[in-house]
Amino acid sequence: MLYNRKTFATSNSLDHFMWVFYFFSRSLISLKNRTRFMADYMNMDTLRFQLYEVMGLKNLLELDYFSDWDQESVDIFLDSMKDFSDKDLYPAFREMDEDPARYEDGKIIVHPVVEKLMRKSGEMGLISAPFSHEKGGMQLPNIVMQSALFIMEAANNNCPGYPGLTAGAANLIATFGSDHLKTTYLEKMMNGDWAGTMCLTEPQAGSSLSDVASSAVPNEDGSYKITGQKIFISGGDHEYCDNFVHLFLARIEGAPAGTKGISLFVVPKNRPENGELKFNDVITAGDFQKMGQRGYCTTHLSFGESSDCVGWLLGEPHRGLKYMFQMMNEARIAVGRSGVSVASGAYHASLQYARERPQGRRLSDTGKKNSDEDQTLIINHPDVRRMLLLQKAIYEGGLSLILQSSKYDDLSRTGDDKERNHMLLELLTPVTKTFPAEAGQLAVSNGLQVLGGYGFCSEFVLQQYHRDIRIMSIYEGTTGIQSMDLLGRKVPMNGGTALGYLVAEMQEVIGQARNFDELKPYADILDSKIAVVQSVLAKLMPFAMKGEHERYIHDANMFMEMFSIVVIAWQWLQMAVAAKKSLESNDKRFTADFYESKIHTMKFYFKYEVPKTTGLCEILKSDEVLTIIDEKELAF
Amino acid sequence: MLYNRKTFATSNSLDHFMWVFYFFSRSLISLKNRTRFMADYMNMDTLRFQLYEVMGLKNLLELDYFSDWDQESVDIFLDSMKDFSDKDLYPAFREMDEDPARYEDGKIIVHPVVEKLMRKSGEMGLISAPFSHEKGGMQLPNIVMQSALFIMEAANNNCPGYPGLTAGAANLIATFGSDHLKTTYLEKMMNGDWAGTMCLTEPQAGSSLSDVASSAVPNEDGSYKITGQKIFISGGDHEYCDNFVHLFLARIEGAPAGTKGISLFVVPKNRPENGELKFNDVITAGDFQKMGQRGYCTTHLSFGESSDCVGWLLGEPHRGLKYMFQMMNEARIAVGRSGVSVASGAYHASLQYARERPQGRRLSDTGKKNSDEDQTLIINHPDVRRMLLLQKAIYEGGLSLILQSSKYDDLSRTGDDKERNHMLLELLTPVTKTFPAEAGQLAVSNGLQVLGGYGFCSEFVLQQYHRDIRIMSIYEGTTGIQSMDLLGRKVPMNGGTALGYLVAEMQEVIGQARNFDELKPYADILDSKIAVVQSVLAKLMPFAMKGEHERYIHDANMFMEMFSIVVIAWQWLQMAVAAKKSLESNDKRFTADFYESKIHTMKFYFKYEVPKTTGLCEILKSDEVLTIIDEKELAF
Repeated sequence: MLYNRKTFATSNSLDHFMWVFYFFSRSLISLKNRTRFMADYMNMDTLRFQLYEVMGLKNLLELDYFSDWDQESVDIFLDSMKDFSDKDLYPAFREMDEDPARYEDGKIIVHPVVEKLMRKSGEMGLISAPFSHEKGGMQLPNIVMQSALFIMEAANNNCPGYPGLTAGAANLIATFGSDHLKTTYLEKMMNGDWAGTMCLTEPQAGSSLSDVASSAVPNEDGSYKITGQKIFISGGDHEYCDNFVHLFLARIEGAPAGTKGISLFVVPKNRPENGELKFNDVITAGDFQKMGQRGYCTTHLSFGESSDCVGWLLGEPHRGLKYMFQMMNEARIAVGRSGVSVASGAYHASLQYARERPQGRRLSDTGKKNSDEDQTLIINHPDVRRMLLLQKAIYEGGLSLILQSSKYDDLSRTGDDKERNHMLLELLTPVTKTFPAEAGQLAVSNGLQVLGGYGFCSEFVLQQYHRDIRIMSIYEGTTGIQSMDLLGRKVPMNGGTALGYLVAEMQEVIGQARNFDELKPYADILDSKIAVVQSVLAKLMPFAMKGEHERYIHDANMFMEMFSIVVIAWQWLQMAVAAKKSLESNDKRFTADFYESKIHTMKFYFKYEVPKTTGLCEILKSDEVLTIIDEKELAF
Repeated sequence: MLYNRKTFATSNSLDHFMWVFYFFSRSLISLKNRTRFMADYMNMDTLRFQLYEVMGLKNLLELDYFSDWDQESVDIFLDSMKDFSDKDLYPAFREMDEDPARYEDGKIIVHPVVEKLMRKSGEMGLISAPFSHEKGGMQLPNIVMQSALFIMEAANNNCPGYPGLTAGAANLIATFGSDHLKTTYLEKMMNGDWAGTMCLTEPQAGSSLSDVASSAVPNEDGSYKITGQKIFISGGDHEYCDNFVHLFLARIEGAPAGTKGISLFVVPKNRPENGELKFNDVITAGDFQKMGQRGYCTTHLSFGESSDCVGWLLGEPHRGLKYMFQMMNEARIAVGRSGVSVASGAYHASLQYARERPQGRRLSDTGKKNSDEDQTLIINHPDVRRMLLLQKAIYEGGLSLILQSSKYDDLSRTGDDKERNHMLLELLTPVTKTFPAEAGQLAVSNGLQVLGGYGFCSEFVLQQYHRDIRIMSIYEGTTGIQSMDLLGRKVPMNGGTALGYLVAEMQEVIGQARNFDELKPYADILDSKIAVVQSVLAKLMPFAMKGEHERYIHDANMFMEMFSIVVIAWQWLQMAVAAKKSLESNDKRFTADFYESKIHTMKFYFKYEVPKTTGLCEILKSDEVLTIIDEKELAF
């Protein structure tokens, strides 16, 4: 190990909420008295603009369900996250890449910041704060929680998965678990002492969950004997948690084939017996070494090799996949957030470089450069500005979508339109996962390009972001799978009701934008692009009705790309409306330049990204079918 | 060092050409008598199809200048390259990544395959074969040379740069050098005993060559005293060559500012004095560690720290940049070829995986999957086929463009239309560099995606290709610089003459395609896209005429992307015409399926890539200017 280890006092003896408030008050004092280390990976002003002025967080906080929170406590919460990220997470970011998580002598070695992270996550409520009071949580709005995780993840995207999966697993147990399971596991997980994981993927099945082969044989006491191999298990083992609680998909002996025969189990690494932890025959078989996100371990776990692995059924038999999708849907939003976070880190790093690096000169009116002039900063070159604006448009647009989806999630738990908001969340989930993953790669690559040759060199951080973000379009269902989910399931669901709701949301923003002369042309463009999406669906839907499902879905990726661009255009128009309103108000939170920059970036998005929809529409309406298999494998 | 070292007999005592023919005849025998190791990184059939059926190599070989060569000798040459690549280069590919080039105790450590590579390059004429007889070469057509390098580079993209830069440097000395320089350096370089480099970049100047600050002060004997720092020097030092001959840009004392004051020097690491090599005060200061292409060293060199570095002027004073551009233009084509090569490696690796990996099931007519069926191979999923076809379309289209440009290069040296062909080469050089670099990244990323989670894991090769190819849009002038070269210099040069020639070449193919009913629709599309390019230029040109150069050029990147797509569409239509002709002939070199697959991939390119031009045209014609600097730096 290259690192100095520190030992921390554990917080187990103190009440969870006590710690949270202790930490809050401490942060408040310390923030006033010193200058924080300003690591440049995200922008708090932009986050606050989106939360308060675009998403209307104050209205959300006025709902009964969220009445424990107000703007002040939210701000303190987010500031303390920024402080923790500046001081602990960001400094470990490059170290975790250079000295990656790895497998040694049957153990997984991770960076010691993971210990601090899990402890702080317990203290600060990062694992359970959004849970309902009944589940032991603080009913923190998810939109605030996602903001906090965005800050942490922009600082160090190796980190939030550790508490994040623990939160997801704890939430599943809290929602579907028996009292026995809740009593046994929840408190330890919410404290961060025990970690949670999701164990879906098996070597022979990959994304095809209907082929899960792990088995569960009933024991006499109602528990199950578990055997199976699981791969790609994020955060699956390390030395900084006392136990790992695996949410595990398996088939109960005799269950039907396919997805209808899959059940969900709680399978701990160590099972609590008579007040002690007994090894539960969960062996760590390895850690996948990866191109990026190297500080986040990706384990291979082997269950029941010595026939002594016990699991407990979560909920009812054969409904495992349905339950797991609660966690999976949360994880998909989290992956989108990761993409946005990495793109934010890359943007700020490349912006900083562009503001400091002199090189070349601007073109004069003769089309020549005057070499007697001093060199200009590269931020003044139009193509560098384009690469910076592209990044800004993608990361801020993506962040806005994360918050928008989180807001729908919050409103699906309370308020007057729970069902409507839930359907909006369902429809947007694959987009919220995919846009930041795919466009995020483009953004980060442009960030690297801003640095030229240095961008490719290990001494600069851009290449790390470039490697890290590549996983986002694979995690938790590839872009291909998300696209089939969007076009094949979410768009047609309930006869297209969700899509109708979404169009209404977009039209609401279009209507507001038309109140400002400067925004009218963009409102008209978005309006016309909604019509384009509808015309594509009018072309495709008949295939689904005729039973030609493979034909209906075969260009789903193109539909995803087109649909995402329209969704982000809606988010940008919404941001521009908010900026316009603030510019006209007498009580501005930020400078006029700040708001003008948002409007400028909206225009950039509409000029450079929205036109892609035209070509995508052309592809989607084409009658040529070139990717469905022929009798002979002609094409390769 | 992890590797066993082998010592090889040097070939210095044998005549260069003797060795070449010895090797040829040996290969011919050995090829007949054994099965070669079939490493899957490129396809010889596709290469031969492009050379003989698309590019008409036989016609080229009938020209006097190339009369030393015929189809048989070309085939033997390429087969022996494949054999060398299979046996030596490909096996070292992953090792060179895992144990990268590095700096230790003042020396650069590289993989021992570099020794074999330089020796073989000398033996097989890889350094000098395309040179004219006068320069000591064999007048090998460049199109054949590029094919050979493509094979080597697809096997291992860390490798061809070592002999490639030596060839470029030797060619510069042969073209512009004094007899003294030629006598002193050429033979050793052409043998591969001494390596060559190009030393342009300096820490404070980056791409801005007008800011080169290295200095040259005349000595009494006509040589110069050299001082300066050069960074990012590929192949700049290692233990497997006895000497390094640096082609070095510097200012002679008192030279004018800017690019007009830059001269080119030959600066060896060790200077020959009285039949011995004396250290010439060129210190290796470090090796840049990089995200990819880690086996290809990237050095920092320091010249004249002890005031004992001597250089010799190449050609006339102050014309260094003009000379260097001969080598730079070759290097730009070479970078494009690298992009194609990496994309070829990634395509074949992902194709192999898709043909072997079972996962999931095809959709039935009910839109469901039947889990009682066996899993299907993933190549049968439409979205996987799309990702494979996209790769194939990009890499084969890019390869065709490399060969097309090389053919123009060959025809600029001989035949009836030297000037026309030279201008076509000039116009296409930035595109030939950029398309494979940019679209190649998209291709490789899709290859990685085919493997899902495994694509991100270090145990599979795709992640290496993904890291390697990222440098191609930075090397030898970034995409931004290439785009400005295309729109700012090449398109308007000689009043648009080159562009006119290119359109004529395209129209020739369109005319041929219209002879085949199946190809007519695609011929029409290409025709209409040429008109789109012309309409964009009609919109932009007035800005240049009005002196608004920054405005004219500010979306040059979008022009490059649009123009590249049209150029590759032309190449694909040309391939489809060749395939159609062969399908109708009685004497087919390949199977009907082979030719049908080319036509299928052409259709794929026209369906999925060509429509992007519509949105790009929209951007280019937009009157919104969002990337030219405002008074206040509003946008960030």
